[in-house]
Amino acid sequence: MINKGLFLYHFPLDPFCRKVRLTLLEKGMPVQLVLTKPWERDPNFLQVNPLGTVPVLYETDGHTLSGHQAVAEYLNEIQLTPNLLGETPRGRAEIRRLTQWFDGPFYQDVVYPILMERLLKVIWTHEAPDPALIRAGRENLQKYLKYIDWLAGRRSFLGGRNLSFADLAGASHLSVLDYLGELNWQGFADAALWYAKIKSRPTFAPLLDDQVAGILPSPHYGDLDF
Amino acid sequence: MINKGLFLYHFPLDPFCRKVRLTLLEKGMPVQLVLTKPWERDPNFLQVNPLGTVPVLYETDGHTLSGHQAVAEYLNEIQLTPNLLGETPRGRAEIRRLTQWFDGPFYQDVVYPILMERLLKVIWTHEAPDPALIRAGRENLQKYLKYIDWLAGRRSFLGGRNLSFADLAGASHLSVLDYLGELNWQGFADAALWYAKIKSRPTFAPLLDDQVAGILPSPHYGDLDF
Repeated sequence: MINKGLFLYHFPLDPFCRKVRLTLLEKGMPVQLVLTKPWERDPNFLQVNPLGTVPVLYETDGHTLSGHQAVAEYLNEIQLTPNLLGETPRGRAEIRRLTQWFDGPFYQDVVYPILMERLLKVIWTHEAPDPALIRAGRENLQKYLKYIDWLAGRRSFLGGRNLSFADLAGASHLSVLDYLGELNWQGFADAALWYAKIKSRPTFAPLLDDQVAGILPSPHYGDLDF
Repeated sequence: MINKGLFLYHFPLDPFCRKVRLTLLEKGMPVQLVLTKPWERDPNFLQVNPLGTVPVLYETDGHTLSGHQAVAEYLNEIQLTPNLLGETPRGRAEIRRLTQWFDGPFYQDVVYPILMERLLKVIWTHEAPDPALIRAGRENLQKYLKYIDWLAGRRSFLGGRNLSFADLAGASHLSVLDYLGELNWQGFADAALWYAKIKSRPTFAPLLDDQVAGILPSPHYGDLDF
């Protein structure tokens, strides 16, 4: 098994990087984090990944892997426990469906507009945020929380009986909103309980220590009882 | 193995539906196609998939699956041949990376703006297309073709030695552009050879028969020698 000398090129508030970090932490695989600002297009980083995206996993022998879910599934294949994908084809399909739902529509409709307008645009261009885009992201968030709440009320974890990529993806995206003080659980009690359960796992602690220049986390971010 | 009485809810020019159709065809699994216009939000379809997205796979026993890559990987698990995912963890990671690259950035930067402006917006709202968005999509396409060309020049198939989801995803997205007459292979000879190889597979023939009300395919679309 390859689990020595792993490096992860990441940006702390990128939810896809967070999903891979949580995967490594849940599997107990030590990794050295390399802080990367992909928008700077550092030539050294582009040698590692010509496409310029994070996360990138760099292995001892110089092999690199990118594509967040490709990396996540790779880690699940080379380190079998805990299995983050379910036991049956139908179980895995449900976990992959939800993971894809968080990483695709949820990110596009909610996390991207809020993160871009409130943080990244300010860092990149020093331009003012567009309030209409932030408002749209917040309105979309309510619809998504409704479905998360529905799932959380019926299952121990979002994808079924056990912790899975569905939880890690969901918590990764929500934790970015949490950092920005965007979460209000009013009306979503089951979703709130589920998120508190994931957030209080020891594996989550390193993410709660993340700080990004230019913005401090919301006062609730490190509060496990919120 | 479950391969009888499968139904696929799909929209013909949706590249994600095409990827699942090609998967079923490559695996020789018969399926009944149910034409679905997800934007109409038909109550009968919303009962099948409350999220309202296609593709949806409906199995004999009433079980439904959605999420395009979740469905694709499910089919690869219940019908093992041909294996569309590679033989090793690193091989699978590379195939999943490329599949995700087509389904994520390539779709967002190229297929979505062109398909939306040239076809879907006209069907949905009868509004005029925005030429700036179409132009941006076309410019982005050149950068993506450069990378596809680079891959195709070095490998038998995009993900390695064998046909894989990387090829099916890539050909699905490109075939939508092909239908709209948007492909110009000038300067991308290796990519053109690879696409011709996938397009001339017997499994591709049903996709070449697709017709969508309101727009005819480009004259080259059904031409295997283009």
